[in-house]
Amino acid sequence: MLDTAEIRAALAAVPETPALVFSQAELSDSARRIRAATDDAGVSLLYAMKPCTLSWVMEELAAHVTGFTASSPFEIRLARQVLGDSRKVHYYGVAVAEHEFAEIGRSCDYISFNSIGQLERYGPETPDLTSPGLRLNPGISFVSDERYDPCRRHSKLGAPIERIIAAEHGSHDISAVAQGLLMHTNCESDDLLDLFATASAVDDRLGLLLDRMDWVNLGGGYTFGSATDFAPLNDASALLRSDREIEIFIEPGAAFVADAGFIVSTVLDVFDSGGVDVAVLDTSVNHMPEVFEYQYEPDVLDYAPDGSHRYILAGRSCLAGDVLGDYRFEEPLTPGSRVAILGMGAYTQPKAHTFNGINLPDAYAMLESGELTLLQSTSYGDFAARNGASQVAVS
Amino acid sequence: MLDTAEIRAALAAVPETPALVFSQAELSDSARRIRAATDDAGVSLLYAMKPCTLSWVMEELAAHVTGFTASSPFEIRLARQVLGDSRKVHYYGVAVAEHEFAEIGRSCDYISFNSIGQLERYGPETPDLTSPGLRLNPGISFVSDERYDPCRRHSKLGAPIERIIAAEHGSHDISAVAQGLLMHTNCESDDLLDLFATASAVDDRLGLLLDRMDWVNLGGGYTFGSATDFAPLNDASALLRSDREIEIFIEPGAAFVADAGFIVSTVLDVFDSGGVDVAVLDTSVNHMPEVFEYQYEPDVLDYAPDGSHRYILAGRSCLAGDVLGDYRFEEPLTPGSRVAILGMGAYTQPKAHTFNGINLPDAYAMLESGELTLLQSTSYGDFAARNGASQVAVS
Repeated sequence: MLDTAEIRAALAAVPETPALVFSQAELSDSARRIRAATDDAGVSLLYAMKPCTLSWVMEELAAHVTGFTASSPFEIRLARQVLGDSRKVHYYGVAVAEHEFAEIGRSCDYISFNSIGQLERYGPETPDLTSPGLRLNPGISFVSDERYDPCRRHSKLGAPIERIIAAEHGSHDISAVAQGLLMHTNCESDDLLDLFATASAVDDRLGLLLDRMDWVNLGGGYTFGSATDFAPLNDASALLRSDREIEIFIEPGAAFVADAGFIVSTVLDVFDSGGVDVAVLDTSVNHMPEVFEYQYEPDVLDYAPDGSHRYILAGRSCLAGDVLGDYRFEEPLTPGSRVAILGMGAYTQPKAHTFNGINLPDAYAMLESGELTLLQSTSYGDFAARNGASQVAVS
Repeated sequence: MLDTAEIRAALAAVPETPALVFSQAELSDSARRIRAATDDAGVSLLYAMKPCTLSWVMEELAAHVTGFTASSPFEIRLARQVLGDSRKVHYYGVAVAEHEFAEIGRSCDYISFNSIGQLERYGPETPDLTSPGLRLNPGISFVSDERYDPCRRHSKLGAPIERIIAAEHGSHDISAVAQGLLMHTNCESDDLLDLFATASAVDDRLGLLLDRMDWVNLGGGYTFGSATDFAPLNDASALLRSDREIEIFIEPGAAFVADAGFIVSTVLDVFDSGGVDVAVLDTSVNHMPEVFEYQYEPDVLDYAPDGSHRYILAGRSCLAGDVLGDYRFEEPLTPGSRVAILGMGAYTQPKAHTFNGINLPDAYAMLESGELTLLQSTSYGDFAARNGASQVAVS
């Protein structure tokens, strides 16, 4: 749990806003908690890079994991920049492009192809030191919102289990090439019983294929919160490993980083609109696109359900729906007040954009020493280049 | 209407995909159509930059407009890079930050403040050559989806008209500072009767304030399609100008660019999922975030409602909902087939991001000469820098 005193310290210390701050202490706490659970279960831990690709965050997590999972050639290169050869790089992408395969094969230790066709096309060309595998889709749906349900109808994610059974049965078309299987059926769940149910179904229906595999990757989608019951993870691992020499991987992403990141923003204006005060912040849903995509209200520091000061916190872009939500506080907000938006470590930094020409937040690390370090910032030059304009002096 | 032959030519000519292509002919056609309508109505035409800030697109549009509307200091600088002093720059943002005001005041010809508080704070400091104004919110809602309804309840966009009436009445607090008014009540509408209704309501309730104004900006939100009835624009302009010396601006954005842009993508894989073929493209909703945000199915070249080949077109990111939709074609798609996604000129390029490490599309211009020109591309170096990693050789 991110320490409130630490957030307040960052709130005061950040020289300019908006800023996306990562807590070293919280990153470490999360990683240790997850690692303890996976060690208990005899499962090898990976960090799935997609929710946060800041290189400093990846460096912090490297010590806690056996490798990273990348989803594109760019992520692979970044993983190698951070890890060198000290740890493994796994690759899973929805499709491998022809011109990308040589690099993927050369740079990764494990590749999970997404379809039987891609396994058959690229598996035999995979270099000897790289282990090819296949993502399977067991078709067991746990997620109610289909926008993030890997097992939605006609899902693009993984080979349907029936197709794998048909291809493997008799002719061993799958195990002739694949050395491992990836399964990933959940999203932001804290219930590892879903993971056990997935593993059980696969063990039940694909047991003979599993006998021929070197590894199984259980995917991500679990929050590994401090209240999580980890027994089903142990059970899933034990089930898959019974009578088999097989390595089990798990690759959480957001679980490592979601709570460690927060956005520090400044109130630019406050005015009444239809009887409620709107406080305009210098951040935007540009910096946290999922707030808009999923229309949820993020947690905000000092939110007080019974507070006497009510504000609609609004982002500064021109989009009418660039609004964080309806909040109450004990103390009033005025222009210059700083506001911390919590739980911003996952799927913010990699999805943020500069719509309306609003600059990205500076990224900072709040070190355990109490020091605040700038990790990354972008400038007008980046914006100009992104728009195909060479930068010239204009003032 | 974008010419199908032109799309096919670009589809074949683009050296690598994904690519975002803008048609010079279509940009010019749209701009001429809009300009003819606004000239007829005696209204000065601006391009609101927010849907597309590619500098080449802005250069193409410059000849057709009296200026650009920017929403941030970065957009202002880009506008000045493109325009120099040849045309006007208008500014409207939901809030001006203290440290930004000097630049905004110095670089813009017109500023519309978003609240009475900001008008009172910054209006008197506005340089003499810059005309300060106020965005008003007439509270007339035309848009059913509140995510893009400027007149939603407790809207952050503009000073509520009742507050303006109260402030102006007797003491002239508004007209003592403001020289113009901005109103913008719609989004992607083709019905200019809404614009007339807005202008009528403002004329009715704020007529005495209008008498003291130098300009009125009617905002954007209209598509200016070829089937649009422009009579209500003429009527709105005539109404606001009757017995007044007042300049009327209008600032469409998407109307200029939406149809001129399309994405060229390549099929990477095709496989059966639950009885339907999924075709994975090398693009993603990363490159067209509104497809995901608003869950709409974009138009695709050669879509044939009764075609015998059915595909779910899927983006290549790991997000389950990174799907364009369910399409039919006369001809089959196979890996290597190219697919053109239409109507991608607005709110794609400025909102695109590199989630999953998937590179941005290269941007091209399809010139009227038939030549295809690269406008902008991004590389691994940009991705590394964005993640705070210095680029080093890794291969």
